[in-house]
Amino acid sequence: MSDTIPPNPTFDGEYVASLHRLLAEGRRDKLAQRLADLHPSDIADLLDEFRPEEQAVLWSVLEPAAAADVLMELDAETREDLMDSVRPEQLRATLAELEPDEAADVIGELEPKEAAEALAGLEDRQEIEELLEYPPHTAGGLMTTDFVLLPRTATIREAIELARRASETTYRHDLYVVDEASRLIGRLPLDRLVFSKPDTPVGDVLETDVHSVPVDMDREQVAEVVRRYDLLAVPVVALKSNAVKGIITVDDVLDAADEEAAEDMYRMVGAARDPLHTPIWRRAIARLPWLLITLVPGFLVGQIIRWLGYQTPQETVLLLFLPVMIEMAGNVSLQSSTVMVRGIAMGEVRLHRTGMMLAHELGVAALVGLPCGLVSGAVGYVFFDHHIGFAVVVAFSMLCGILSAATTGTLVPLACCRVGVDPALASGPFVTSLNDITGTLIYLGLGARLLYFFD
Amino acid sequence: MSDTIPPNPTFDGEYVASLHRLLAEGRRDKLAQRLADLHPSDIADLLDEFRPEEQAVLWSVLEPAAAADVLMELDAETREDLMDSVRPEQLRATLAELEPDEAADVIGELEPKEAAEALAGLEDRQEIEELLEYPPHTAGGLMTTDFVLLPRTATIREAIELARRASETTYRHDLYVVDEASRLIGRLPLDRLVFSKPDTPVGDVLETDVHSVPVDMDREQVAEVVRRYDLLAVPVVALKSNAVKGIITVDDVLDAADEEAAEDMYRMVGAARDPLHTPIWRRAIARLPWLLITLVPGFLVGQIIRWLGYQTPQETVLLLFLPVMIEMAGNVSLQSSTVMVRGIAMGEVRLHRTGMMLAHELGVAALVGLPCGLVSGAVGYVFFDHHIGFAVVVAFSMLCGILSAATTGTLVPLACCRVGVDPALASGPFVTSLNDITGTLIYLGLGARLLYFFD
Repeated sequence: MSDTIPPNPTFDGEYVASLHRLLAEGRRDKLAQRLADLHPSDIADLLDEFRPEEQAVLWSVLEPAAAADVLMELDAETREDLMDSVRPEQLRATLAELEPDEAADVIGELEPKEAAEALAGLEDRQEIEELLEYPPHTAGGLMTTDFVLLPRTATIREAIELARRASETTYRHDLYVVDEASRLIGRLPLDRLVFSKPDTPVGDVLETDVHSVPVDMDREQVAEVVRRYDLLAVPVVALKSNAVKGIITVDDVLDAADEEAAEDMYRMVGAARDPLHTPIWRRAIARLPWLLITLVPGFLVGQIIRWLGYQTPQETVLLLFLPVMIEMAGNVSLQSSTVMVRGIAMGEVRLHRTGMMLAHELGVAALVGLPCGLVSGAVGYVFFDHHIGFAVVVAFSMLCGILSAATTGTLVPLACCRVGVDPALASGPFVTSLNDITGTLIYLGLGARLLYFFD
Repeated sequence: MSDTIPPNPTFDGEYVASLHRLLAEGRRDKLAQRLADLHPSDIADLLDEFRPEEQAVLWSVLEPAAAADVLMELDAETREDLMDSVRPEQLRATLAELEPDEAADVIGELEPKEAAEALAGLEDRQEIEELLEYPPHTAGGLMTTDFVLLPRTATIREAIELARRASETTYRHDLYVVDEASRLIGRLPLDRLVFSKPDTPVGDVLETDVHSVPVDMDREQVAEVVRRYDLLAVPVVALKSNAVKGIITVDDVLDAADEEAAEDMYRMVGAARDPLHTPIWRRAIARLPWLLITLVPGFLVGQIIRWLGYQTPQETVLLLFLPVMIEMAGNVSLQSSTVMVRGIAMGEVRLHRTGMMLAHELGVAALVGLPCGLVSGAVGYVFFDHHIGFAVVVAFSMLCGILSAATTGTLVPLACCRVGVDPALASGPFVTSLNDITGTLIYLGLGARLLYFFD
């Protein structure tokens, strides 16, 4: 059966209501029947429509294999809540159904005590414990150990036999060929298995230009490698021995790339990647620090106004345009820093060309700053204060403010990148604060002097 | 040979310099030799280090097949420049090497006259013309026609034979099975070909729960389907007949998802997705409209200050805190709108729950607004004006401004989504403008009244 539109039961109020009724009546058998036909991703989406205690009931009616799949499709928050409410034996039964890398992901989210209990009964315990050693945002944290390794001496027939014996969920689109020390020497695409003679040694038909990534590579870079070379999977190798430890498949890279992009966006505005059902207080705690930090330059701006502004009636008129000055500086630097942050994430930014990139951004800033300055000066003259000095001050400081904002917006992310700080995280508060202060200083400082000049 | 770190010759100044020397000496043979071993993606990156006329020379020394691959790895801007400078016969030779969908992408970027000329000599002309009909951001625009279709009556042996005859670049990880009217009835994973008996009819072993997308589906939704069901490829079907028209592979989805994420970020700040070597004036033109638009509310804020503020010395003190008020409102609404825009893009936002989402965002806003308000009031009292009325005005309007900003930041993207406008595009300017004005009105309007009250 083909679905031209992705079936999404979560948007069907009728369907959800019927499940609510069955839940209320305690009809576990009927619920199990209803959920049996759905894709695990759809069940995971569906759970979002229910309260945590209802989620636990719905999840518990699933077959262990389906329950395991659904678990992996949930976001971390919902999964955590669910894990808290299920019985230990049910948790263990589900973990036993998971691939080692999936089990490691779930166990990694548990409290240390629970994690130890969950691990105790598992067959793959050692493998999972090894996987738990890798930080989640690295190649090691992203990889699965469920793939097929071949010795270079195997024949095509043996390779087919080995792959056939692997489970359905094993990645089999490429088989990886290693030497005696488990070092990667090539890749055997599945189509070569199909289309080569059975007695051929795999060494004769393997693809030798195979890309791999080290276990400690950041997942953003892993995504860059997979994207760059259009890979379906990339092997992960140990740091010193170069032995193959696992593979990362493109579906996990797609998820990771999306998460990274979302994280960059969220970090730039000082918000956590918070799914919409995260408790309100957690989301507030994630956002508050940045807001409190940016209060400080805000107060400083007030202090600068007190120092520099509103001594004379002329200068008080200047204050009318201060908000638009700060706003425009903020916009311009947000544009520059967004281009830089995204460019860094996509591997498009070349650090050895910082000077050229700054020159370009300043060129853009000058081109947008001139019309903005002219319009502002004209508006200042016509609507606010028929005084040519005021118009010139407004126009000139608008241009200077925009140039200064583009400079901060370009250099701060690049500097962060160079010293190894996440540019997205630092760019937001840093750039905003710097601009508020420099913008006010430029405008009011320059303004007061220029106004003298015109008097 | 395995590369644990992606080879990236573009970061090696020595290597680039040696190519520059060979270019200057006109050693085309040597250049061709140097480039022959590089991956097309790496050559594409490398070209960024050269001027357009040099790029044309470097590209022209490549074998037609390699030249075609490199062409597809370039970003649209560089490709356009390159296309402008190569001879028509060279362009035609390269297009002949491309898959129909790739050729359609390249031709779609040409001027109508050039496009007609380029099409004239091509073998796949009709197929390419059909592909050109689909808008680039839809499933039809993203799909390739290079895949294997099987009639339901074929046997495994016939399927293997059909797949074997397809070219190396054909997607063969799944073969798609159709009925007499070309409607999709199932999918045959390549591993089933390998592991099934040759005489089995494909109808007996096919996977029937196959997902497909309609030709006109937006690529953001296509990415959502591929991500949700962890697909390597998804078939694309015609709107009425449901006949299979092509497939979209996960590598193209990964690229599309990255582009969409980047576009959302850029749109939110009113910048175009402009690679760093795009001409400065083009980037300025992309950014200028939003900046000019947001000037208007900026001026309005000045006007509002003139109406409401600085009549009395007390009120003039209020102005000291206006920038921080506007800034904080801007930050809070940027947080809310970012969460909404990304949530919409990732398919996490449920429009039927607008009320609940707003309530949650307001809850978060209240939780961050209270501490921000209290801190602001305290700072206002201690450092600026030992007047309890001033402190209360500042604290209370900070809270109100933040609540109002969260409301706009949440509702504007959702409203855009409901009426079919890109939330990322509209959220930036709309939200910023609304907040500047409401923030100022709330602060100064409330402030003046409250100050009377305390006098």
